Amino acid sequence: MSEQHILSAFDRDIERIQAEIMKMGGLVEDAIRNAAKSLESRDVELADQVRAGDKAIDAMEERINEDTARLIALRAPTAGDLRLVLAVMKIAANLERIGDYAKNMAKRTRVLVDSPVVGDTASALRRMAMEVQRMLKDALDAYIQRDVELAEDVIERDKDIDQMYNALFRELLTFMMEDPRNITPAMHMHFIAKNTERMGDHVTNIAEQLIYVVTGERPGEDRPKADRTSTSKA
Amino acid sequence: MSEQHILSAFDRDIERIQAEIMKMGGLVEDAIRNAAKSLESRDVELADQVRAGDKAIDAMEERINEDTARLIALRAPTAGDLRLVLAVMKIAANLERIGDYAKNMAKRTRVLVDSPVVGDTASALRRMAMEVQRMLKDALDAYIQRDVELAEDVIERDKDIDQMYNALFRELLTFMMEDPRNITPAMHMHFIAKNTERMGDHVTNIAEQLIYVVTGERPGEDRPKADRTSTSKA
Repeated sequence: MSEQHILSAFDRDIERIQAEIMKMGGLVEDAIRNAAKSLESRDVELADQVRAGDKAIDAMEERINEDTARLIALRAPTAGDLRLVLAVMKIAANLERIGDYAKNMAKRTRVLVDSPVVGDTASALRRMAMEVQRMLKDALDAYIQRDVELAEDVIERDKDIDQMYNALFRELLTFMMEDPRNITPAMHMHFIAKNTERMGDHVTNIAEQLIYVVTGERPGEDRPKADRTSTSKA
Repeated sequence: MSEQHILSAFDRDIERIQAEIMKMGGLVEDAIRNAAKSLESRDVELADQVRAGDKAIDAMEERINEDTARLIALRAPTAGDLRLVLAVMKIAANLERIGDYAKNMAKRTRVLVDSPVVGDTASALRRMAMEVQRMLKDALDAYIQRDVELAEDVIERDKDIDQMYNALFRELLTFMMEDPRNITPAMHMHFIAKNTERMGDHVTNIAEQLIYVVTGERPGEDRPKADRTSTSKA
């Protein structure tokens, strides 16, 4: 009976923490969406909201870390339970980093607003960011529903993000070569694109954590990486 | 007596994990040094060594995570001990990321070797990376010796890294404006510079973990950030 009691106390604690994760995920989704919108519409006010909102995201990660530490100390989980607790911490860390990238995107909006518009690249970036936001939503849904298939789908879709990034990288290069006045804004756009591509990697990490929780195995680390710019001679 | 026994088992475990951390730190220091060297001397073979070596760094983080999870499950540490265990996990995660950035630098060396040389920027990058490597060495020494003063010194020195990055960013801009053929290699150099600046942030995180372990308080998050390029209109 005492075993039973310990188990359900653990379940209650982990469910509360998982609810915090979902709330944190919602804030991060908003941050991505609003950062991308502010970039395209050159809306400095919205960008400033995203920047200010990042503090709440950081505070949630801190709280989740404290709660998981307390849970570990109180319930001393082992095996699958411990794996779940560690996965929750990793997911919170990944969400925090995605939030940071959204904040950084918003920060650069403030700069870009005074620079020449570089073709349609801000719209391409918005599409890329919106896709990452949908992937994040699905990764969190997959986590809550323990849906390995959906998690695998998310991991697969990260290849599209990598391809969108590669295309945008080349497009930015042509704008820079065409007119030196495009160089500075295009470099900022490139950073934002790279950071968006990294958001996709962190969403992939979240999906992989779910697969690890359910199957006890880490998805192969040899999955193809489609960002070829670091080895591209453009 | 049983309390005494539990304490020393914990100490023995944590010391073994800390020894792994130091070993991992040594590998990461080598990776930074060799990646920077390979970039400056255009030594593709050395760059390939760095890339191959990253697998060992990742494997060490994995092992440290498993060992800390086992330690938590077995010893159920609380308060200061739990804080120490969580700090160790954070330090391993930061080391892994620094190793990733070094690998990425090495990856781009392979590309840059076929591109025009962009002024003396590869030497400036090597100096910046070497300073980060020294900061990392000091951060790990500070951790092992519980030397808060040295940790604070490391955090202070990260401002120099940020300044070096800002100077390099502007230098690269001028090369790009001067000659469009510099654009592609300069963009790669810029990525490497930004990643090196981020390595400095992760070294700072390590130093902050030590301060947290010793004092129980997180160093103020409001320390001045000296990377101004994300808000620079260059």
